[in-house]
Amino acid sequence: MRRKKEFIKEYWRNSLKLAGIIGILTDFGEEDEYVAAVKGVILKINPNVKIIDISHYIPPQDVVKAAFLLSSISPHFPEKSIFLTVVDPGVGTSRRILVIETKSNKYFVGPDNGVLSLPAEKEGINRIISVENTKFFLKNISSTFHGRDIMAPVAAHISLGVPIENFGPEIKDFQKLDIPAPKIGEDAIYGQVMLRDHFGNLITNIDKNTAEKHLRFDNRYDVKIGSRIIKARFLKTYGEGRKGEVLLIVGSKNLLEISINQGNAFEELKIKVGSGFKILL
Amino acid sequence: MRRKKEFIKEYWRNSLKLAGIIGILTDFGEEDEYVAAVKGVILKINPNVKIIDISHYIPPQDVVKAAFLLSSISPHFPEKSIFLTVVDPGVGTSRRILVIETKSNKYFVGPDNGVLSLPAEKEGINRIISVENTKFFLKNISSTFHGRDIMAPVAAHISLGVPIENFGPEIKDFQKLDIPAPKIGEDAIYGQVMLRDHFGNLITNIDKNTAEKHLRFDNRYDVKIGSRIIKARFLKTYGEGRKGEVLLIVGSKNLLEISINQGNAFEELKIKVGSGFKILL
Amino acid sequence: MRRKKEFIKEYWRNSLKLAGIIGILTDFGEEDEYVAAVKGVILKINPNVKIIDISHYIPPQDVVKAAFLLSSISPHFPEKSIFLTVVDPGVGTSRRILVIETKSNKYFVGPDNGVLSLPAEKEGINRIISVENTKFFLKNISSTFHGRDIMAPVAAHISLGVPIENFGPEIKDFQKLDIPAPKIGEDAIYGQVMLRDHFGNLITNIDKNTAEKHLRFDNRYDVKIGSRIIKARFLKTYGEGRKGEVLLIVGSKNLLEISINQGNAFEELKIKVGSGFKILL
Repeated sequence: MRRKKEFIKEYWRNSLKLAGIIGILTDFGEEDEYVAAVKGVILKINPNVKIIDISHYIPPQDVVKAAFLLSSISPHFPEKSIFLTVVDPGVGTSRRILVIETKSNKYFVGPDNGVLSLPAEKEGINRIISVENTKFFLKNISSTFHGRDIMAPVAAHISLGVPIENFGPEIKDFQKLDIPAPKIGEDAIYGQVMLRDHFGNLITNIDKNTAEKHLRFDNRYDVKIGSRIIKARFLKTYGEGRKGEVLLIVGSKNLLEISINQGNAFEELKIKVGSGFKILL
Repeated sequence: MRRKKEFIKEYWRNSLKLAGIIGILTDFGEEDEYVAAVKGVILKINPNVKIIDISHYIPPQDVVKAAFLLSSISPHFPEKSIFLTVVDPGVGTSRRILVIETKSNKYFVGPDNGVLSLPAEKEGINRIISVENTKFFLKNISSTFHGRDIMAPVAAHISLGVPIENFGPEIKDFQKLDIPAPKIGEDAIYGQVMLRDHFGNLITNIDKNTAEKHLRFDNRYDVKIGSRIIKARFLKTYGEGRKGEVLLIVGSKNLLEISINQGNAFEELKIKVGSGFKILL
Repeated sequence: MRRKKEFIKEYWRNSLKLAGIIGILTDFGEEDEYVAAVKGVILKINPNVKIIDISHYIPPQDVVKAAFLLSSISPHFPEKSIFLTVVDPGVGTSRRILVIETKSNKYFVGPDNGVLSLPAEKEGINRIISVENTKFFLKNISSTFHGRDIMAPVAAHISLGVPIENFGPEIKDFQKLDIPAPKIGEDAIYGQVMLRDHFGNLITNIDKNTAEKHLRFDNRYDVKIGSRIIKARFLKTYGEGRKGEVLLIVGSKNLLEISINQGNAFEELKIKVGSGFKILL
């Protein structure tokens, strides 16, 4: 009888942790042992947590791509979700490791290089902790793999319900991603290509509201990149375009994209990520 | 005490959902946020469901490949499994979205473009629902990503036990995949290359029974494709063949495959998917 | 009342299985149905088990790479973890299938081709079983896919608590991986390149202890491969090196690696996996 009671009590405690989801986002690829090492470390600390692969194909050290991806998907996840992001070009240097708790009751764990700023600000920042308490780290810390040795155990302990103030001091400032706001001139919108997706669509920094305020559906615009001018039509859906036509379209990230209908804009237009451009009004 | 009772009751209810497995099959790749967005939407609705990655590397919009893959693996899964298939070249058009309940007590969710017909017919169709009840959709429906906005929440609600008649009207007809049956002539079997796997094996529409009825093990046959004749031996296992030999072999899909022993038939024979051929008897 | 008691009893039984983690390591890639078929077979037998993708991108039939990867990650996983490894060039021949129980209370399932020897010996071998009891196999055994038909159901039954002596007789000998030990000469360490990771780092058979005993940090060494001599510096961390510099560095596998700082040693140095070399002291 005592055993049963204890069992119920333990299950009760466990049930409180059940929202335990850790999403993992890395630039590791899946050919090597890095992703599995991170998963193993987490499961050793909390065998009941649900591990979700977000993506392991961030281009190596592409902090901007990771930040956009994360901020685009985190709102779809349930409360108490924990996101572990290991895109960490500064590993081995003195860059900090952060836990950010959001107003939406989610947790972001990752290096302080800007990768967390976009999603955290979108969800609303509640507290930022600088991870310093070595008690929660693996015993041997390598100089090249803090994702496994520090961030994974911290994420796993959050999923066990460890209050985040245990990991280190609260801080106020942190590294922000430098995303330029689009500018509206008298006769043009000035934007920048922020990243490309694997269909070759070029995602810009021009948000849906700005696009729909200044552009008219079905109009054709001159897009000026350097000395080139590309003609592109602003459409609601791909279905309205002709095959091979260059389109301006608000994609699923709620950002304006330069696309080629059933084609690959990145390869065909040879526009580099980071390029500035203007859309003539 | 009341709390304990309620807890037990709630767990009891939850336990009925435990078979909750959602397998996801897409052509999204894993470089971008699409797969994770679908996973997030599902977990927000049912944090207890088990998400299984079937594959995200269907070649873009290759409905035939997705249909074959799905029909080859669904029989291995337990009852009550839910399969969410997002290979959806018609997104944004008026193509329907379906839930198919099978006699084997499994659920297939996906666009009505033929991708579900092969696995559903293999498992035995019980009911087909046209998904129309917007109550179960995300609030904002994009025109480019029904996998996230409509199909994912529907699959998640099925895993919660929502009866499928809630999603829309039952229908009788749906889009079928056009898989030509192999034809037996007087002196030849006429077949077609349906797809290739990543080893370069060419999978045909000739099923195991037809192959074993008309071909004799260890015989060498002339396979005529266009004006070319390829000599190939019908074998039970790869181990019986010589390295580099062209083989006819019934693979794990129970379909006849044209293979090169320890080689890549697709690359070396340069046979296109969709090609017709005949095996001279 | 009886129902509640039974429910508690069943849950109690289930709770004992909760450590149920099956990690899957294959050379299947994710384009085809192979991985999902293995997952389905496991879940049909034990729908409550947690399936963890270790990697499906082992180069085809690369037993050495799989063995190193597995031995590098298994220590991070919790007790009772089960590792299913399907890198099986001998499928269809008479090679045995093994279950190895380790002193660390983990289970390795896979073909007897050496792939399990490295991780099993690292964890400490308790018992080795030759899998022969067809009762636990799928009904129809293909000649090409024992991962699905034999190994997956065996792993799933272990996760259900089936004692491993049920799968077949205990054996003492098994196939070991031929990893040459590094040799220390009078004026050189003799090593071999064992594998490369996806950053192009060349991982050698020289372990951390040997490296740190015979090499001095910050010293530059001549590495002789065939008739070439490459100059490389022995460093603790990448951060200490110059961009493009050839480094000798102990990586996260605790093995000495030949790397190019922020570069790809495999591509730039054109050193083949398997090459012998000596580091002149």
